[in-house]
Amino acid sequence: MGSKSPETEHPVKALGYAARDTSGVLSPINFSRRKTGDEDVRFKVLYCGVCHTDLHFVKNEWNNTKYPVIPGHEIVGVVTEVGSKVKKVKVGDHVGVGCIVGCCHSCNQCGANQEQYCSKMVHTYNDSSVVTYGGYSNHMVANEHFIVIWPKDYPLDGGAPLLCAGITVYSPIRYYGLDKPGMHVGVVGLGGLGHVAVKFLKALGVKVTVISTSPKKKEEAINTFGADSFLVSRDQAQMQSGVGSMDGIIDTVSADHPLVPLISLLKPNGKLVLVGAPTKPYELPAFPLLFGRKMVGGSFIGGIKETQEMIEFAAKHNITAAIERIPIEYINTAMERLQKSDVRYRFVIDIGNTLKAA
Amino acid sequence: MGSKSPETEHPVKALGYAARDTSGVLSPINFSRRKTGDEDVRFKVLYCGVCHTDLHFVKNEWNNTKYPVIPGHEIVGVVTEVGSKVKKVKVGDHVGVGCIVGCCHSCNQCGANQEQYCSKMVHTYNDSSVVTYGGYSNHMVANEHFIVIWPKDYPLDGGAPLLCAGITVYSPIRYYGLDKPGMHVGVVGLGGLGHVAVKFLKALGVKVTVISTSPKKKEEAINTFGADSFLVSRDQAQMQSGVGSMDGIIDTVSADHPLVPLISLLKPNGKLVLVGAPTKPYELPAFPLLFGRKMVGGSFIGGIKETQEMIEFAAKHNITAAIERIPIEYINTAMERLQKSDVRYRFVIDIGNTLKAA
Repeated sequence: MGSKSPETEHPVKALGYAARDTSGVLSPINFSRRKTGDEDVRFKVLYCGVCHTDLHFVKNEWNNTKYPVIPGHEIVGVVTEVGSKVKKVKVGDHVGVGCIVGCCHSCNQCGANQEQYCSKMVHTYNDSSVVTYGGYSNHMVANEHFIVIWPKDYPLDGGAPLLCAGITVYSPIRYYGLDKPGMHVGVVGLGGLGHVAVKFLKALGVKVTVISTSPKKKEEAINTFGADSFLVSRDQAQMQSGVGSMDGIIDTVSADHPLVPLISLLKPNGKLVLVGAPTKPYELPAFPLLFGRKMVGGSFIGGIKETQEMIEFAAKHNITAAIERIPIEYINTAMERLQKSDVRYRFVIDIGNTLKAA
Repeated sequence: MGSKSPETEHPVKALGYAARDTSGVLSPINFSRRKTGDEDVRFKVLYCGVCHTDLHFVKNEWNNTKYPVIPGHEIVGVVTEVGSKVKKVKVGDHVGVGCIVGCCHSCNQCGANQEQYCSKMVHTYNDSSVVTYGGYSNHMVANEHFIVIWPKDYPLDGGAPLLCAGITVYSPIRYYGLDKPGMHVGVVGLGGLGHVAVKFLKALGVKVTVISTSPKKKEEAINTFGADSFLVSRDQAQMQSGVGSMDGIIDTVSADHPLVPLISLLKPNGKLVLVGAPTKPYELPAFPLLFGRKMVGGSFIGGIKETQEMIEFAAKHNITAAIERIPIEYINTAMERLQKSDVRYRFVIDIGNTLKAA
């Protein structure tokens, strides 16, 4: 941020919620955003999802937080101003911004609409190269390239989490080809990402098995989200019953856990895709990959074009996240509950109705 | 083998070289093979390659050796007898047999010509379900399905190692799509597998970088095998110079080694393919896979149809293994040298001229 305060750097005053130190406690902050540039879209924030990443950043768990940090990268709202060259949307339109607000526009990844793998990708908040502030704030401004056009009549609150949680599972389902009707795909972890993965896979005609440490999630996995079956990962007999049955697995778990029992669930040529990131390395023996030509791959959010495709797919198939809508004053309690995985299945902050100047 | 001796189980006498205990010392053995069945091809063995797997088995390093073990799964020779239903070859033809002599013929893998992943696959020697003997022997018999037709004028001795070493690298190059002209692919380890991988990749128009612990292999990698460049894996500056430059890597090393420096060499969407099998699990952190959507996959030999395709590709492009041709009496010395990786680059036993009854 250099030597200037955010309030003097930019001309447009804004109100947000920020953490100011590793306590991670969020409180109101006055800051500023840039003027609406020629290619910029400014919008009043109505809802913002609470991602587990927000918790990592407010507590500096990845050792790269720049305080004050204003989190939030599942941002939706209504357009209030557009620059002179903007073609994508107009004032009054519903829009969203996810995890990305900048990229180089000239590398191979940008050329392939995979801005998420551009080495100059700018994160929506706490970016390492420029100062960025997220969606726990009353308004937002972004280059139109990074604006997602919100489908007509698609819910703003239930849809917001799809801008990160949704695309994070949708993109690997498509890229790794786990989207063919009749396939059998496992989803590890029934949380913010996992429950949306189940919904996408079912909409694609895929048979879904949820794999979880919590037997108590079985009823909801099957009856609410439509999973076909459920395996308790700590129950060896149950896991044995699934050996060699799956074309792929989307593993959403960020807690340490073994990979070999998951690899065993795969058919020959099966794919285990990691979208969670435990801090400790996995143990990966070679033999289970060799015998069956299996692979372990990663995936990280998705590009802007694919995010637009994802949100339209969700709207078409009536897919939203299961959410708890909360006022901004509840955010610190929400973070404590999130730490304990006590949320079904995503907090969404009602910014529009609850974030007001004191 | 039940209670009968191999010499009385089957009617056709044979002579081979077997290890009889964990000393791994090989010595002559009289045994027997089955009669030539309706669908069988019998051939006089002329050459047999010496695979590192043979060393594992003669010393029981994988704890599953059934003694006496007659190794050898890179077997070539000339047909001496065919069953009444055999259509593939005739007496006098040159043929090969690789690592597989049986499968169920009815599962999805067999249906997809991927017999190597059939759960009932029968190994050419030391199979776990039936008694099989390998190519360190004067003749061989196999169902014609598992017979590879040898291309006209293609060398028998230099070609033999391709039946295991060759297909082990050719199959993943094709399956993982690392076969496109202009791609850049790394080959880790310049041994029996690695040097053949370099030759295949160059024939496909791919740019190849060899990655090795041994700086002294650089000259041969580039000048003899045609690699474009060479990285010493223990030289951090060299490895840093290759970061983010490769579409894929074929990792042939079976000694313990770290994966993260290799993953770093990959471009976004890059693929690290393991064909070696260290005994200790690798350490695999999630972040290097997520950021760049990279994958770590395995591959194990190849199916019969693909082996035929591979040998025809090799013949067309004049690709053979670099070999040391040895008499059978040299096999124990060869095994000692193989243990020390002292071979350039594959031993091939001249069975036809040197394996004789005492």
